[in-house]
Amino acid sequence: MADVAGKERRIVVTVDESEESRHALSWCLENVISSNSKDTLLLLYVQPPRAVYTAMDGSGYLFSADIMATMEKYSNDVAQSVIEKAKRMCQDVKVETRVEHGDARDVICQMVEKLNADMLVMGSHGYGLIKRAFLGSVSNHCAQNVKCPVLIVKKPKSPSDASN
Amino acid sequence: MADVAGKERRIVVTVDESEESRHALSWCLENVISSNSKDTLLLLYVQPPRAVYTAMDGSGYLFSADIMATMEKYSNDVAQSVIEKAKRMCQDVKVETRVEHGDARDVICQMVEKLNADMLVMGSHGYGLIKRAFLGSVSNHCAQNVKCPVLIVKKPKSPSDASN
Repeated sequence: MADVAGKERRIVVTVDESEESRHALSWCLENVISSNSKDTLLLLYVQPPRAVYTAMDGSGYLFSADIMATMEKYSNDVAQSVIEKAKRMCQDVKVETRVEHGDARDVICQMVEKLNADMLVMGSHGYGLIKRAFLGSVSNHCAQNVKCPVLIVKKPKSPSDASN
Repeated sequence: MADVAGKERRIVVTVDESEESRHALSWCLENVISSNSKDTLLLLYVQPPRAVYTAMDGSGYLFSADIMATMEKYSNDVAQSVIEKAKRMCQDVKVETRVEHGDARDVICQMVEKLNADMLVMGSHGYGLIKRAFLGSVSNHCAQNVKCPVLIVKKPKSPSDASN
């Protein structure tokens, strides 16, 4: 059994607006990061691809450049807010942050490789069939395609579960 | 950031004959279990369901009771061998072992719940399309269906990766 304190691990944690994501980060901080470790947490927020907005602008009238800029600003504000909240949770641990655009599945896999991560931690949006069918596939896709170990953390359903 | 040393976690690690499984256990020991923790590792080996042998015995001639007993003994020997090898890897950590019969996907999910596990660690057999299509689904299924966090560990492809 090795002593994790001596290693410098790079752990990517995906963050988003959801409670599941917050829980995954919290679980990771409590269970994976030891208090005297040299780990670096890389908080990764993936914005939807800009192309989504462009595609909605099919008519050429609905979305002016102003509206596009407003939506872009809103999207960036959300990203910053999520990143800031996540950073505040990470006391006494080295943190880097990244905001990227694109399809979450592709971007996460690419960034894990690019950042030379030792581990990927993700929340799982596991409630509701539609939600699971769509969002579940992000963690499935990443678990199958990234080379490093992947930790998928589910948010307990009830408050009593949360205390475990 | 909590200190993991004080918590008593129950971590289920699935083990089988594969190199991937050995790597997953090794990674878990090095990266998840801290040297002064009170964690208990629950090594779980799932044997194929006995029904598989019975189903092969369609003719009533091919497999006598003797052959069935021999196959059963062989299967148990493999299970014991895997469990013993896995136990030898776990120095200075509390270990419990379980051997169960059935479909790995169902059994793992059931046992994680029954054993009240805080985390499930699995190897991923990720090489080759056929193998992935079949074996990959075990980790996918478990990641989607168990309530606790799931760590999927891949074996690095090349020796140079293994040193990371």
